[in-house]
Amino acid sequence: MEFKGADIITVKDFERPDLERIFALAHALEPYACGEKQSDVLKGKVLGNLFFEASTRTRLSFGTAFLRLGGGVETTVGVQFSSLSKGETLGDTITVIDGYVDVIVLRHPELGSARVAADVAKHPVINGGDGPGEHPSQALLDLYTIEKERGRIDDSHVTFVGDLRYGRTVHSLVELLTRYDGIHISLASPESLRLPRAMRKSLENKGIPFTETNDLKQAVKDADVLYCTRVQRERFEDPTEAARLVGAYVVDRELLVNHAKDDLTILHPLPRHGDLSEDVDDLPGAAYFRQAHNGIPVRMALFCLLMGVDSSFL
Amino acid sequence: MEFKGADIITVKDFERPDLERIFALAHALEPYACGEKQSDVLKGKVLGNLFFEASTRTRLSFGTAFLRLGGGVETTVGVQFSSLSKGETLGDTITVIDGYVDVIVLRHPELGSARVAADVAKHPVINGGDGPGEHPSQALLDLYTIEKERGRIDDSHVTFVGDLRYGRTVHSLVELLTRYDGIHISLASPESLRLPRAMRKSLENKGIPFTETNDLKQAVKDADVLYCTRVQRERFEDPTEAARLVGAYVVDRELLVNHAKDDLTILHPLPRHGDLSEDVDDLPGAAYFRQAHNGIPVRMALFCLLMGVDSSFL
Amino acid sequence: MEFKGADIITVKDFERPDLERIFALAHALEPYACGEKQSDVLKGKVLGNLFFEASTRTRLSFGTAFLRLGGGVETTVGVQFSSLSKGETLGDTITVIDGYVDVIVLRHPELGSARVAADVAKHPVINGGDGPGEHPSQALLDLYTIEKERGRIDDSHVTFVGDLRYGRTVHSLVELLTRYDGIHISLASPESLRLPRAMRKSLENKGIPFTETNDLKQAVKDADVLYCTRVQRERFEDPTEAARLVGAYVVDRELLVNHAKDDLTILHPLPRHGDLSEDVDDLPGAAYFRQAHNGIPVRMALFCLLMGVDSSFL
Repeated sequence: MEFKGADIITVKDFERPDLERIFALAHALEPYACGEKQSDVLKGKVLGNLFFEASTRTRLSFGTAFLRLGGGVETTVGVQFSSLSKGETLGDTITVIDGYVDVIVLRHPELGSARVAADVAKHPVINGGDGPGEHPSQALLDLYTIEKERGRIDDSHVTFVGDLRYGRTVHSLVELLTRYDGIHISLASPESLRLPRAMRKSLENKGIPFTETNDLKQAVKDADVLYCTRVQRERFEDPTEAARLVGAYVVDRELLVNHAKDDLTILHPLPRHGDLSEDVDDLPGAAYFRQAHNGIPVRMALFCLLMGVDSSFL
Repeated sequence: MEFKGADIITVKDFERPDLERIFALAHALEPYACGEKQSDVLKGKVLGNLFFEASTRTRLSFGTAFLRLGGGVETTVGVQFSSLSKGETLGDTITVIDGYVDVIVLRHPELGSARVAADVAKHPVINGGDGPGEHPSQALLDLYTIEKERGRIDDSHVTFVGDLRYGRTVHSLVELLTRYDGIHISLASPESLRLPRAMRKSLENKGIPFTETNDLKQAVKDADVLYCTRVQRERFEDPTEAARLVGAYVVDRELLVNHAKDDLTILHPLPRHGDLSEDVDDLPGAAYFRQAHNGIPVRMALFCLLMGVDSSFL
Repeated sequence: MEFKGADIITVKDFERPDLERIFALAHALEPYACGEKQSDVLKGKVLGNLFFEASTRTRLSFGTAFLRLGGGVETTVGVQFSSLSKGETLGDTITVIDGYVDVIVLRHPELGSARVAADVAKHPVINGGDGPGEHPSQALLDLYTIEKERGRIDDSHVTFVGDLRYGRTVHSLVELLTRYDGIHISLASPESLRLPRAMRKSLENKGIPFTETNDLKQAVKDADVLYCTRVQRERFEDPTEAARLVGAYVVDRELLVNHAKDDLTILHPLPRHGDLSEDVDDLPGAAYFRQAHNGIPVRMALFCLLMGVDSSFL
C-alpha cells in the first residue's frame, strides 16, 4: 500500500506489511505521543476534525495526535451546526473543507459517508466511523495493543465476547487478525448477536479455526486475549430475556481469576456500561485504558504516513 | 484606510486601493494558505473565533487562516453555551474576551452586533456576518475570485441570479463592484426578490449601467461572471407559485452551454440547494469551490493587515 | 505546597507562600498573557479543556492561557456530546483522556467531580468549577486583582454584596483572604442569602473581624474593595419580595460616588445582570473587566507550576 496521499476507509485495504509499517512508526512515535519529546513536523498543517456524530474520545484522540506533531486542528461537532442541516450534500461540504485543510478525519452516521468524502477530497480522508460501517483506526489500535502487550500477534487465541453482530470494532479486528499466523478465534455471544454469517464463512474460507459458544467460562478458558464489548438491552424484544442475556456476558474478576489464563490480555473499545466490571481494573492484563491511549501513537503514525512526513527526525 | 488596529465591519469602508492591497497580500500568501510554505508570524497570538450563530465553513475558514500563520484559535459555537444566554450584554461578553485574545471574528444573528463589538473592543473585530447586515470578508473573497479567475475586475459584466433582495452577499459584492471601471450589472430575480430600491438608486447615482430581467436566458447571455444565489421557498406565500419561481432560477449545464459565453465564470457563495445543478461542476468556469477556498488567503491577508504583521517574510 | 504534578481542586490547599509564588509568576507572565512577548515552553504539550457544563469565558481563558505558551488545546463542551451521556462513569472518561493529554481542566455540574477526576488522573487536574463546590482559579484571579490594583492585600477592608449564600466565588475569596493580615470583611445581603453559618464561625475562629448588614450604603462606606455578585430572583418564593430585594442590592454610580471611598476597587466575577449598573464602568476603580483579563496570567502561572515548566525564560 502506498500511504502518501491515501485514504483510510476500510481495514480491508491493509495487508500485513502495511500493518507492520504503521506499528513500527507508532512505536517510534511513542515518546512524542506522551509529550516527552517534541516535534513540529506538521507545522503549518491543519487537520479538519469533522465529527458530524458525537464521539468525544475519538475526536480528542485524533486532535491530540495532530497537535503533538506541531499541527493545528479545526473541529466541528454535530450535524446541527453544519450546512448539512441546510440541505447541502456531504460531497459539497467536504469539497469546501478539503480546500481549507491538509487532511480530514470524518465521523458521520451514514454507512459509506467516508467513501463519498474520499472520492471528492484531494487530501487524505480518514474514516473515523461511518455508522454501521467501519472505524478502521480503532481496529489498528486494538491490534497494536495486542502486539505491544504480548510482544507478538501470531499464535494468539483471541476471544470476542458480547455483541458480535453489530459491534463494528469486532468485525474489523477479526478481519485484521486473518493477516496473522496461528490465530484461533473464540466467539461468545447470545444466539441473536452471533458474528454475521458472511464473516464466519470468510473465516472458514481463510482456514482460521474458530469456535462459538454461549458459555462465557468456556470462552475465556484458552484465551490469550479477551475482547469485550457491550450487549445493549435494546437489541432484545423481551425485557426479562434482555436482562438475563446481558447479565450472562458480564466479565468480572471472579470469572477471570477462576477461569482464564494468568497472562490474559483484556481489551475493550470503551465506553463500558455494566459489561466489564471495575473489579477487573487492577488485574495486570487489564489493558483497555492502555489500549485507548495507544490511539495517540497509532493515529500519529497514520498522519505521518498519509501526509508523507519525513520520519528521519525519529 | 489604515488597516493596523482597524475593524472590518462593512464593505463601505473599502476604497479601490484598499482592495488592491488586500488582494496583493492574499496572492502572496497563497503558498502559505495551502500549507505548501510555513510561517509562524502569528506565534503567541490568539484568535477569538466567536460564532454565536452556526456557520461551520466560515468558522473553519477563519480558524484555518489563523492557524496557517502559526497562531492559536479559541472557538465558541452557538448562543446556548455562552453567558449571553444568562442575560449578559454582547458588550460585556466582548469586553471580557477582547482582554484574552488579539483579534476577534464575530458572527451573531443581530444586525449591528459587529459594530457594537468593535466599539467596545480594543483589538480588531472582523464581522463574520451580523444577521441581515453584512459579511464583508465573503464579498472580498468573491471579488478576489473574479480577479484571480479572469485576471482583472474592470470591464466585467456581472450577472446576479436568484434572491437579490435578502442575499447579503449580493448587496456587498454589488457595492464593491462600483469601485471598478467598466462594470455592467445584470439582475435576474423574481419580482418580489428584486435588488432593494435603495441599491438600484445608488447604482444609478454612480452611473453603473444595470439591467433587470426575470428571464434567466436573457440574463446570462452577455455575462462574464454569473453570481448565483439560492431562492428560498419560504419567501413566497403561495406554495405552487414558490415551486414555479424557484424552478425558474435554477442554473444548470443546459442553460450555460446553450446561452452563456464560453469563458463564463460561475460563482456561488454556497451552500447550494437545488439552485445550481451539479452537472455544472465540471465546466472550466465553475469556480465556486475555488471561490470558497480563496477564503483562506483573503482572511490570512486581513489578519496580517489588521494585526500589523511585518510581511517581509513573504 | 509542591506544585509540580499537583492538582488544583480547592483553595483550602493554598497557604500564603503558595499564593505569593503564583502571583509573582503571573506578574512575570503578563507580557506573554497579552501577546506582547512569545514563548513556546509548552510546545508539544496538550491541554484537555473539558467543559461538561457550559462556561464560554472560563473555557476561553484557560484555553488562551495554554495557547499563549505554545501548547495545543483540545476542547469538549456539554455533556450531550460525551460518552458520559452513554452511561460511562466520569472516572473512565477521565482515565481515557488523561492518557491523551498533559493536563486537564474540568468543569462539571456535580459537587466533588474534580476530586474524582484528580484521583484517577496521573496528570494534573484543575477544577474549573464543580457545581456548588469550588472554582479555585477564579478566587486566585480575584485576589491577584486586588494585589495588582491596590499594591497589596494586607490591611484591606473587603465588602461582599449580593448572594453570599450560594456564591461560590465569595466563599473561596473569603477563605483566601484569611491568609492575609489586617483584613476586615463586610457582608451585605438579604437575610436569606447570608454567608453560611459555618463560614461565619470560621472567620470568628480565625479572628477575622467582620460585620453583617442589609444596608448597602452602610456596607460600602469603609470598603477598600467591593466584591459584587448577582442576586437571582429565583432564590425567593414571593415575586414581589424578590423584586424588592434584588433591587436593594444594585450597585450603581450614585451609590458609589455618594457613599464609598474615592479609591474603592470594584470587583465582580461576571456575568452581571442588572446587579451592577453600567454607569459604574468608567469609574477609575471599576476593575471587573481587568479582573476577568487577569485570568490569563494567573492560569498561565498555574499551568507552568503544575507542569514543572522551567521559568528561566522569563
